[in-house]
Amino acid sequence: MSRIDGRTPEQLRPVTIERGWSKHAEGSVLISFGDTKVFCTASVTEGVPRWRKGSGEGWVTAEYSMLPRSTNTRGDRESVRGKIGGRTHEISRLIGRSLRAVVDYKALGENTIVLDCDVLQADGGTRTAAITGAYVALADAVTWAQHKKLVKHGRKPLTDTVSAISVGIVDGTPLLDLCYEEDVRAETDMNVVCTGDGRFVEVQGTAETTPFDRKELGALLDLATVGCADLTAFQNEALARTLGE
Amino acid sequence: MSRIDGRTPEQLRPVTIERGWSKHAEGSVLISFGDTKVFCTASVTEGVPRWRKGSGEGWVTAEYSMLPRSTNTRGDRESVRGKIGGRTHEISRLIGRSLRAVVDYKALGENTIVLDCDVLQADGGTRTAAITGAYVALADAVTWAQHKKLVKHGRKPLTDTVSAISVGIVDGTPLLDLCYEEDVRAETDMNVVCTGDGRFVEVQGTAETTPFDRKELGALLDLATVGCADLTAFQNEALARTLGE
Amino acid sequence: MSRIDGRTPEQLRPVTIERGWSKHAEGSVLISFGDTKVFCTASVTEGVPRWRKGSGEGWVTAEYSMLPRSTNTRGDRESVRGKIGGRTHEISRLIGRSLRAVVDYKALGENTIVLDCDVLQADGGTRTAAITGAYVALADAVTWAQHKKLVKHGRKPLTDTVSAISVGIVDGTPLLDLCYEEDVRAETDMNVVCTGDGRFVEVQGTAETTPFDRKELGALLDLATVGCADLTAFQNEALARTLGE
Amino acid sequence: MSRIDGRTPEQLRPVTIERGWSKHAEGSVLISFGDTKVFCTASVTEGVPRWRKGSGEGWVTAEYSMLPRSTNTRGDRESVRGKIGGRTHEISRLIGRSLRAVVDYKALGENTIVLDCDVLQADGGTRTAAITGAYVALADAVTWAQHKKLVKHGRKPLTDTVSAISVGIVDGTPLLDLCYEEDVRAETDMNVVCTGDGRFVEVQGTAETTPFDRKELGALLDLATVGCADLTAFQNEALARTLGE
Amino acid sequence: MSRIDGRTPEQLRPVTIERGWSKHAEGSVLISFGDTKVFCTASVTEGVPRWRKGSGEGWVTAEYSMLPRSTNTRGDRESVRGKIGGRTHEISRLIGRSLRAVVDYKALGENTIVLDCDVLQADGGTRTAAITGAYVALADAVTWAQHKKLVKHGRKPLTDTVSAISVGIVDGTPLLDLCYEEDVRAETDMNVVCTGDGRFVEVQGTAETTPFDRKELGALLDLATVGCADLTAFQNEALARTLGE
Amino acid sequence: MSRIDGRTPEQLRPVTIERGWSKHAEGSVLISFGDTKVFCTASVTEGVPRWRKGSGEGWVTAEYSMLPRSTNTRGDRESVRGKIGGRTHEISRLIGRSLRAVVDYKALGENTIVLDCDVLQADGGTRTAAITGAYVALADAVTWAQHKKLVKHGRKPLTDTVSAISVGIVDGTPLLDLCYEEDVRAETDMNVVCTGDGRFVEVQGTAETTPFDRKELGALLDLATVGCADLTAFQNEALARTLGE
Repeated sequence: MSRIDGRTPEQLRPVTIERGWSKHAEGSVLISFGDTKVFCTASVTEGVPRWRKGSGEGWVTAEYSMLPRSTNTRGDRESVRGKIGGRTHEISRLIGRSLRAVVDYKALGENTIVLDCDVLQADGGTRTAAITGAYVALADAVTWAQHKKLVKHGRKPLTDTVSAISVGIVDGTPLLDLCYEEDVRAETDMNVVCTGDGRFVEVQGTAETTPFDRKELGALLDLATVGCADLTAFQNEALARTLGE
Repeated sequence: MSRIDGRTPEQLRPVTIERGWSKHAEGSVLISFGDTKVFCTASVTEGVPRWRKGSGEGWVTAEYSMLPRSTNTRGDRESVRGKIGGRTHEISRLIGRSLRAVVDYKALGENTIVLDCDVLQADGGTRTAAITGAYVALADAVTWAQHKKLVKHGRKPLTDTVSAISVGIVDGTPLLDLCYEEDVRAETDMNVVCTGDGRFVEVQGTAETTPFDRKELGALLDLATVGCADLTAFQNEALARTLGE
Repeated sequence: MSRIDGRTPEQLRPVTIERGWSKHAEGSVLISFGDTKVFCTASVTEGVPRWRKGSGEGWVTAEYSMLPRSTNTRGDRESVRGKIGGRTHEISRLIGRSLRAVVDYKALGENTIVLDCDVLQADGGTRTAAITGAYVALADAVTWAQHKKLVKHGRKPLTDTVSAISVGIVDGTPLLDLCYEEDVRAETDMNVVCTGDGRFVEVQGTAETTPFDRKELGALLDLATVGCADLTAFQNEALARTLGE
Repeated sequence: MSRIDGRTPEQLRPVTIERGWSKHAEGSVLISFGDTKVFCTASVTEGVPRWRKGSGEGWVTAEYSMLPRSTNTRGDRESVRGKIGGRTHEISRLIGRSLRAVVDYKALGENTIVLDCDVLQADGGTRTAAITGAYVALADAVTWAQHKKLVKHGRKPLTDTVSAISVGIVDGTPLLDLCYEEDVRAETDMNVVCTGDGRFVEVQGTAETTPFDRKELGALLDLATVGCADLTAFQNEALARTLGE
Repeated sequence: MSRIDGRTPEQLRPVTIERGWSKHAEGSVLISFGDTKVFCTASVTEGVPRWRKGSGEGWVTAEYSMLPRSTNTRGDRESVRGKIGGRTHEISRLIGRSLRAVVDYKALGENTIVLDCDVLQADGGTRTAAITGAYVALADAVTWAQHKKLVKHGRKPLTDTVSAISVGIVDGTPLLDLCYEEDVRAETDMNVVCTGDGRFVEVQGTAETTPFDRKELGALLDLATVGCADLTAFQNEALARTLGE
Repeated sequence: MSRIDGRTPEQLRPVTIERGWSKHAEGSVLISFGDTKVFCTASVTEGVPRWRKGSGEGWVTAEYSMLPRSTNTRGDRESVRGKIGGRTHEISRLIGRSLRAVVDYKALGENTIVLDCDVLQADGGTRTAAITGAYVALADAVTWAQHKKLVKHGRKPLTDTVSAISVGIVDGTPLLDLCYEEDVRAETDMNVVCTGDGRFVEVQGTAETTPFDRKELGALLDLATVGCADLTAFQNEALARTLGE
């Protein structure tokens, strides 16, 4: 079976990770998974929310949003509608949890890092691209905080890397990294977030049209594990480049 | 190892399902998983939302909410704060998706069923109790609609049953149906939604403190599969009773 | 004349008051006036709102809400609509004022008690059932606060009991404790809140279709005074039982 | 006992009613009860809200608001806070109900009249001045609608006049038409809405500090009945003048 | 060419400025430009917003609003819609900026003055009438603050006067002070805010239907400069009268 | 005098205009004025808002927004705050008016074009870059609509080009195209919107610290006119390129 864009079932779309895309943010990344493009910025501020003050621990949170015309049909702005939709809330929370899984709050100290993930163009997999890109922006922000001595000498606020990929069953075949057209047709889709050492941070599988069994679940996790390993390599490669190159 | 309430790792809390708790709703259930109590009502209306008109297909949706003092500390009402929080949105969407997985829209015809799941008392597992109870309320509402001839003779709008349970790893041990205290201490927790035939509708696993590996994931799914089978039996038993008994 | 449910004009519907319905709240009551069921919880917190700090006085407030399917037709959730309706506001304010009429703020000390009155099933008289039940929850919460030494030894934060009942003129006849069907047909309806010693805290009479004269007003107040005295007896009886029996 | 402004207990403050204060509105009145000044406009539109279409009946509703500096201390605008407070809601509803008590919807036909009551300066009794003034604006709007043939020839949409006054017990003495300083010190206060023929439309009595008994209630109603009769005379006098004089 | 109301192109509508219209506000003015009537109050409070604390400097801000029936057709209340419209925001900001242009914050000291401009009746030019009237209310409020010693002896918080007028091109002719009908037909309209010494604080010109050239812009500025000088004279005259006369 | 970035007073920052930046939008442009980067998309839909139906005329509107970390310090998202700020409203309205000045609604036919201008990075002049870029996106969208036959053969919905630039007086010197640092220090700043033929669509001048006189206004308009002419050339050049090159 050949996929809509000619990929094999276990193949990622072309991935690009551009660091330093913003002159203001402490970390910033433009990441693309094929035609999906997400702009991720990491903003560092000294201090933590009130409920965490005096704990000696930091905080990391995330906000996800789609530009109105990032999709095929223009959507209303949530600011204009005056409230945030359920999907936006859900994805923002997922990104935050995923990144916090690799943060050592004690090492971060009482600093807050906010990750903003704004989808400039959507073609499926926006939340997984957001998590993967946000990790790189977070890493750059942590480095910045270390240089500024906001993080104590020798402390490592990040315990591992984190990346995410979507998988799904389309016409009975498990596929990696679904584009929008595949996503719409999927019987089951799943988003998997992994650490660099290959363990799971989140596994969110949903039967869109047909409940799935243990064997199908296994096949999807196999695909996702390999996909996240590839993304981890892309992240490390991007972070190995000198910023500004 | 003995659990906080004396259960074995693979044991559910006492489950009760009382049908017919509301004189107004077409289906209504008070379900309890131990001290967690959720009031589920199913409201049937003829017609469907605008975007579905003329399709010949029905619609099922859900709203979840916690009473302000369902928890140990009183929470603000979302109506007073003027907006729905991310967690509420997320759970409402999960309940809706889970039930829709067993709905045959064509058989339902152009009718809408809204499931309201209001948590009267919370002690962990409110979303899983809500799904499990809402299914029973939905089944009663469908029966009502059949009697009222809103559903055509001979059509079966429900293709299977659906139930849900939480599982998690606490102090390294996989446990079924976490109570609040266990949930707070869990390294990983997972909500699993199954159909009556044992397939998965949703698998949502989250590493709270420690990423989990494939083997741990497997152990959790084993527990959840057995737990959901037990809940399916409780649902069938409850539905077998004459309403009003 | 016989009423729809066979009562005499001056007869209350069956009243039940179950205490200790919540394991979390400091006071909790499930009250029913016939088919009207309201769940009342009292939440105690140390401290008072900012504008009252340092006064040595406490604060008591209330919030009323109806579950979406407490009525015959499902209503939208106010949290989903993003704002509280006028009727909800008005009843919340009425409950708060009614309870505050029997509170000695000095004796309560700088503690806050919030009464939540959530209507599980509505059949007329939800606000009067809410006030009557909330008083009992409040009394239990005050006892709890005394045991916890939040209230100073020997101080009595409650100066009397308080209860409420609706009355109305239906087809020219003054009736006590209107059920929904009677309420809809009433020419005039009135909610009366009384202290245990028979004085008035609130008298809210409204001509729904026909203005009323002084004699009709008198007849309604006569009925309400007797009705509230009966409710006071039910409250005292309920509070005389050992909690948990 | 002499009152703060030298009035006797049963004396109204000076009342002025200026009609035709707006060049746009179909009816408009600037009413003052002493230093309380309320600007009332009546806006007529053909047609009725959706839920009333095809009924052949009209609709009358009201909105009340206070200018931010109508009071001694500036209050936040409700438009800026993004929501309407409970008090505003409650008074808007009271004004609407009071006026609807004298409207014959059939005679009005499918027309809507909205009464806007904006408090320019507040010194107690704003809601009663609003009702009293709004009636006059409503009467002018009805006349306008008759001239425009929106109301059928010979139909009388208004069945009577309506006015309102506050009464209260201050230092044990029942007083008519409380100014702000008296209102603050009242043990009990009551707003009474009467038709021109002396019957009650609304009686809303509240014990602010001390519950009241039947005799006190009687004394307050006596005062209010006389006060409303005086206001009815002022209304008729104002309406007898040629508009524009 | 003769204008709709018989004025010459360079003629203002009749201007009236009544001071002391509110017994509560520290400064208050009812200003009219023909049929446009705006009620302006100035509210003084000690202290400044948090971000300005400790600076030794004061703050001046403004809020503009239209009563629902100030216009020919009734508009929804922004408080009911739950949000402030763009036009309201824009004009509130314009009024605030215009007044701040003549405020010496150091001389004002840490006091805040809020100008509320509520349009009672609209017939074009509401924002310019608001600015012109608000200045007079501000001047009275400053005098009040000086008497109360909130402003230090000898300090002059106002460095000049400020007034505003609209100009526009209608059927090719530049006109001063457009009424509503002219405003609707204008090809270009412009609001100009001037200090008493004839310099510009704001120039906001908009081509409604036809872009304008440098020469037309010049003609409009000429008109506006003369109009503002006239308004300055009216302001000084009003302030020269004894308050209460 | 040398400017902070070495420019002469009448020199623009480097301008880049990249078309075709989005695969979904009917027109899309990434425009930069130095470090200010704005992403502009034009979305075409058949049909017009309700109030315009049946007129045969189209509609063009715009929404402006800043990404939270487009500025030096992270700002709250307006969607999270639940309302749009005054500045956002004001700029959205300005962009819409500016573009509509060159639209022939009849020629456009009953089609709606929405311009979204999202600021990715801000360094002064975001609204002028937005207008300048949005025009190019609009032109591409119109071309698309012509190809799709939404616009009738031979009709030209755009009557001219439109561009915008900021000017201001800094330390007494009139400067073109202020960057953020200059903007903060400006005594007066002005935004000028011109058509391609050099006439004015909008002139918005504000005295930030010092009122300005006629001569200064003239100097600023001179600068702006030349700046807009340069921008017009950049727009035409960009539109002359084959899309995708």
